[in-house]
Amino acid sequence: MSNVSPRTLSGFMELLPAPQQQMERIMETLRKTYALYGFTPLDTPIIEASEVLLAKGGGETEKQIYRFQKGDADLSLRFDLTVPLAKYVALHYNELTFPFRRYQIGKVYRGERAQRGRFREFYQADIDVIGDGKLSVLNEAEIPAIIYKTFSALGLRRFRIRVNNRKILNGFYAMLGLEDRAGDVMRTVDKLDKIGPEKVRDILTGDLGLSPENAGEILRFIAIGGGTEAVLSTLEGYRGRNQVFDQGLEELNEVVRYLGDFGVPAENFAVDLTIARGLDYYTGTVYETTLLDHPEIGSVCSGGRYDNLAEYYTEKQLPGVGISIGLTRLFYVLGEQGMLNQELNTAPADVLILPMTEDLSPAIALATQLRENGVRAQLHCEAKKFKQKISYADKLGIPYVIFLGEDEIKEGVVACKDMATGEQTKLDARATIYRIRAGLDSRNQGFVIRG
Amino acid sequence: MSNVSPRTLSGFMELLPAPQQQMERIMETLRKTYALYGFTPLDTPIIEASEVLLAKGGGETEKQIYRFQKGDADLSLRFDLTVPLAKYVALHYNELTFPFRRYQIGKVYRGERAQRGRFREFYQADIDVIGDGKLSVLNEAEIPAIIYKTFSALGLRRFRIRVNNRKILNGFYAMLGLEDRAGDVMRTVDKLDKIGPEKVRDILTGDLGLSPENAGEILRFIAIGGGTEAVLSTLEGYRGRNQVFDQGLEELNEVVRYLGDFGVPAENFAVDLTIARGLDYYTGTVYETTLLDHPEIGSVCSGGRYDNLAEYYTEKQLPGVGISIGLTRLFYVLGEQGMLNQELNTAPADVLILPMTEDLSPAIALATQLRENGVRAQLHCEAKKFKQKISYADKLGIPYVIFLGEDEIKEGVVACKDMATGEQTKLDARATIYRIRAGLDSRNQGFVIRG
Repeated sequence: MSNVSPRTLSGFMELLPAPQQQMERIMETLRKTYALYGFTPLDTPIIEASEVLLAKGGGETEKQIYRFQKGDADLSLRFDLTVPLAKYVALHYNELTFPFRRYQIGKVYRGERAQRGRFREFYQADIDVIGDGKLSVLNEAEIPAIIYKTFSALGLRRFRIRVNNRKILNGFYAMLGLEDRAGDVMRTVDKLDKIGPEKVRDILTGDLGLSPENAGEILRFIAIGGGTEAVLSTLEGYRGRNQVFDQGLEELNEVVRYLGDFGVPAENFAVDLTIARGLDYYTGTVYETTLLDHPEIGSVCSGGRYDNLAEYYTEKQLPGVGISIGLTRLFYVLGEQGMLNQELNTAPADVLILPMTEDLSPAIALATQLRENGVRAQLHCEAKKFKQKISYADKLGIPYVIFLGEDEIKEGVVACKDMATGEQTKLDARATIYRIRAGLDSRNQGFVIRG
Repeated sequence: MSNVSPRTLSGFMELLPAPQQQMERIMETLRKTYALYGFTPLDTPIIEASEVLLAKGGGETEKQIYRFQKGDADLSLRFDLTVPLAKYVALHYNELTFPFRRYQIGKVYRGERAQRGRFREFYQADIDVIGDGKLSVLNEAEIPAIIYKTFSALGLRRFRIRVNNRKILNGFYAMLGLEDRAGDVMRTVDKLDKIGPEKVRDILTGDLGLSPENAGEILRFIAIGGGTEAVLSTLEGYRGRNQVFDQGLEELNEVVRYLGDFGVPAENFAVDLTIARGLDYYTGTVYETTLLDHPEIGSVCSGGRYDNLAEYYTEKQLPGVGISIGLTRLFYVLGEQGMLNQELNTAPADVLILPMTEDLSPAIALATQLRENGVRAQLHCEAKKFKQKISYADKLGIPYVIFLGEDEIKEGVVACKDMATGEQTKLDARATIYRIRAGLDSRNQGFVIRG
């Protein structure tokens, strides 16, 4: 009867149960952390009218869109969560209260060339704060705290949130009379890590036609370093020459000023003047987050401040600030790097109950009692040998196995084996549940990621 | 600049923040409840190769499929979670441990004619237990417990899990010599609730050409009622005339026998011989769940036992039992019926902090402390009047507002207003957090659904 080979499309992540449990843990951590900062969950359709989704049009992305006809309708799958957010806010403007803070964790689609570690269907986990007309810079100052808390809650320690401000860059380039070429210059500077300062200088003076003086100024500027305080103090030296620059510096000072109050340790933060973020719509603070031991991965959480979220849908001015985690890729990379904590309980159940009597009533009643006490319990009533059932628990990593035979039932006790230690107890149901819950509590303390 | 009217496709649910919070609560309850029964979460792609997804081919569904080309690939969006499960189990057979118990909550797509209350993108919430070759009937007996626990956890009280067994029906029709027409007969009997027994008799004797005796037998059979014990005892009268019937009766007895041990109250359960479930692949126990006060909605949780999950993908015999909740439609209907609990906290935050000083440090430090204690806190630092900020908390239903002015900071206290009672306290941060947490605990005790 079987006539089709089962397969999953390349570029589509489909996890086995144990890693899926880890992924679920990560998503739950994100949901909880985002919620702590007052973001409300949102869920928008995966399919949108192409006209709406592609209102902005053009760009590299358009070729990658999954776009198709259904009946008369020209439809597309969303390729990020920002455009649907813009649509949502414009559409429901009158029903929302601003500032509007939302998080969304959802799948997006890009038909990229398939290659290892690249995904065509992947989760993004976004937060955004949208203001109506205005939005305080304090929202920009809060973002590093959210990034820090999120990655810490996942177990990461060695990461750095790198921050810059587009007004500082734009103002600086204006000082050099390079307003018109600021975009090209930023894209070149962005390659600094990859190609080094001399190649950057060559492109600036060559392709872009900058004077050697200007190229030198730029290289000196982006080399400003030495820790947050030192960078800010060096930037003070540029103050007074351009209004936009000055405003950017004010904003950056504001972001840095409250880091401690927001609970962000100094070592997890850096001002980095090389960061620009490609997208044109960023206008203020921009963010990247890198893993210190894996810089090659690039940024695992990026975003920034923008002035006009939904200009294609509404005349309303809707400034905002947001960040996005490319969750599927992050999960893939963490797995590749061996950074997922294999000691976490990924079993489908906490307890496997093996009834040893014809009458299943006592075993079922015990399962019900365990579940009522929040313990994930599975009955194993298949026609299998005892050894096979133990092996089942073993393979799945189920931490406890309970045997319930005539003797135990008569004595009013439960035989419970800790599969890790081999230790076996015979206690009444209540005491057994207490033991299991205590054991699970200590087992589940670990983080998903070994950072 | 705005040039495209923002809109959401018809047939696609897009919720405002407050109802979305209710939906999230429902999903979280489902995840937790399914996990208590030892089901592991799964996530499969929304896009599959058409060849794989449509291996079974044909049927009413095929016209509704979202199917399209991308490059050379013929792709389709999944229309349920069962076919992807079959693919998954066949594909990963060697890496899975059986019985394999999984839950999946995910979006599926059907391009139905758009009408009120019908959705083209909707969530299904499925659980299935898959055996390798064999699967104990105890898994069928456990399903009513899972349904009961799930709906109870959501807050529903007045619902009934209605159960039948396909072997009883097939065996009974075989007794009448109607094996060949069993499908047609079942489809007719299925209309009993809608058209009444006399119309059913007319169709049976008319279109289907049954003898008046057989039609009478059938109507007598499906009229068997009077409570679970009475139905089972009446069914005993048919025993010994057909092997399949007898086996079905054994299975039904087994399902009923352990209901009490599984914690299912008698009033939430009924044997209902009219239930057949259309799909051919059900072979044993079948389930429907109806809301007693809203029978017009139809079944809100259905499923059954099947013998061969993945016959299109593998020669392996993979029997299973599963149920599915049409979550989006259920949510819609609950909203329409006014059954969603409006008193639940659906605010994006538990506390809104209004800093009243130039220096935001104390307010930010307090927000950080609240968050570290698990309280969802939002800072409101926008350039708005005090009254507007209070109105913001009010509109969003944020239960507590904290004011932090020079006086409070000097005194080392926090002014905290309970927005529901108007009661205002001035306590230190720890005591304020304690008060808020206690208040939230009592607020969050309610169920999502008022059943």
